[in-house]
Amino acid sequence: MGEFDLIARYFTRKPARAALGVGDDCALLQPRPGTQLAISSDMLVEGRHFLSTVNPAHLGHKALAVNLSDLAACGAEPLAFTLALALPHADEAWLAPFSRGLLALADAHGCELVGGDTTRGPLNICITVFGEVPVVAGRSQALLRSGAQPGDDVYVSGTLGDARLALEVFRGHLSVPEATFATARERMEQPTPRVALGQALRGIATAAVDVSDGLLGDLGHVLKASRVGVRIDTTVAAGLVMAQAEGMFTAQQRLAFALAGGDDYELVFTAPRNARDAVAAASARSLTPVTRIGVIEAEPGVRLVDAAATPVDAAFASFDHFA
Amino acid sequence: MGEFDLIARYFTRKPARAALGVGDDCALLQPRPGTQLAISSDMLVEGRHFLSTVNPAHLGHKALAVNLSDLAACGAEPLAFTLALALPHADEAWLAPFSRGLLALADAHGCELVGGDTTRGPLNICITVFGEVPVVAGRSQALLRSGAQPGDDVYVSGTLGDARLALEVFRGHLSVPEATFATARERMEQPTPRVALGQALRGIATAAVDVSDGLLGDLGHVLKASRVGVRIDTTVAAGLVMAQAEGMFTAQQRLAFALAGGDDYELVFTAPRNARDAVAAASARSLTPVTRIGVIEAEPGVRLVDAAATPVDAAFASFDHFA
Repeated sequence: MGEFDLIARYFTRKPARAALGVGDDCALLQPRPGTQLAISSDMLVEGRHFLSTVNPAHLGHKALAVNLSDLAACGAEPLAFTLALALPHADEAWLAPFSRGLLALADAHGCELVGGDTTRGPLNICITVFGEVPVVAGRSQALLRSGAQPGDDVYVSGTLGDARLALEVFRGHLSVPEATFATARERMEQPTPRVALGQALRGIATAAVDVSDGLLGDLGHVLKASRVGVRIDTTVAAGLVMAQAEGMFTAQQRLAFALAGGDDYELVFTAPRNARDAVAAASARSLTPVTRIGVIEAEPGVRLVDAAATPVDAAFASFDHFA
Repeated sequence: MGEFDLIARYFTRKPARAALGVGDDCALLQPRPGTQLAISSDMLVEGRHFLSTVNPAHLGHKALAVNLSDLAACGAEPLAFTLALALPHADEAWLAPFSRGLLALADAHGCELVGGDTTRGPLNICITVFGEVPVVAGRSQALLRSGAQPGDDVYVSGTLGDARLALEVFRGHLSVPEATFATARERMEQPTPRVALGQALRGIATAAVDVSDGLLGDLGHVLKASRVGVRIDTTVAAGLVMAQAEGMFTAQQRLAFALAGGDDYELVFTAPRNARDAVAAASARSLTPVTRIGVIEAEPGVRLVDAAATPVDAAFASFDHFA
């Protein structure tokens, strides 16, 4: 038995819902009758998606969290995932906490590891996640990007910009008090996938996407797929930067973090005006705060306005992993 | 739109069987009623699973072929796959042939690309593949590693050892005529996943596995899972090295290539003695040659014998990607 077979043991557990788990050529999954399978895949590379200094337990959490966030954006219930891992060397001091962080989040969502691959190579973590979405009367209940309508409200869950704030501190571009940094860093390293909210929004939201590259960038996918535009209240959006740190960065920086920070893993979604009570109920049921930040308009493009509805002149590049 | 968004276009096509393909947070798949989903994931790293000099079209083929081979070993019918790709830079001269080789094999198997990820990073190809396996009367028809019984025949499909022969030529350890090398190299770079055979063996084979790390290594998984041993006719096995090259390597080398070469992507499977006609019919139906190389025995371990049933003293290390 090789070094890497031993590693695989960190990730081998008895299957729960899967018909067959780790250890054969394939895993076997049987989605419940009346459901379809939602599938998403994300690859994380050192230096691009995480810093080499990150706590491996946090990295394990984040690698699955960013995938669960895609399921959340579709309103899917997590079911299982595969993990493919390239490692420069078989380092148990890294693997033990990595698997602990990964499997703790998996357990919290009833999402079991059913297979994968390990190999030697530059550090690379590739997770493919599977979730169930009900099909009702032949119609998928999945939340897509394409259903936003003019007049729909635009909401975002949780907070925005904190991960980017932490990144800028790491980069030496910003300096903030230790407590502010700790809060922001936790948001960067251990994001909370909004899985319960996504499911609660089925049948209510008209479109949804998760915010990984920045609010404007990801909302842009919804606008494009739905062929609509948006008006955003920048005062409300800027207020969503959680790690409040008055005087340490400008209002313009705060707004940039909120609108184009990236790595937020919040949901941005649209819902009809007459569904405000239903959205509030979904938010309460899923214990996830949501904030109304704008409205969908027929005219394509993004219009930023302040609290007095005065246009705000600002341009933001989306957080680009490939820049 | 970034450089890597453009790349994604190489891989974006209209969904056929999938309910939703590339372009949303998740793909949506609906397995046919009465089936379960077989899932496998393989990660390919430069220098370990392929040489940097490989033709990108061949690499595209191989990246999917090794995954389809896992479906074949389960008797699954290919349905769809996701592709996660890390690239040092967005090189269209590489991407165009890579996607062509990949999608040609995908089309040949009706296996559609439904999603994935692209990022900048050291070259890494991670594919997760999905296939369907019938469930008949509540019983999965998947071929597993655990069903081999004492007295079962042991078969292997196609040829063995050619990929390893090509690798040894690349490494400068062997020299063979150009035509022999060309044959062996094609087997190394463009393996044929035995998908039709795997499906034809459902209900016939008692256990199956695909040969990626070498016959003895992978058959070892079957022996362990089934708690049995095996007797192998080394004369027959050594005869399965296709790229015949008398005098260019020793009988011992030939046997080592057959039993422990690796990268073969053939199926090794077991079936009851009374199923010989059924195996022959499955072989004919799938246009895939199979050869009987041994027999399962109750006593654990591997016993190598020659044509006269005399024990052969030989030890082979399995081809180890992590050595």
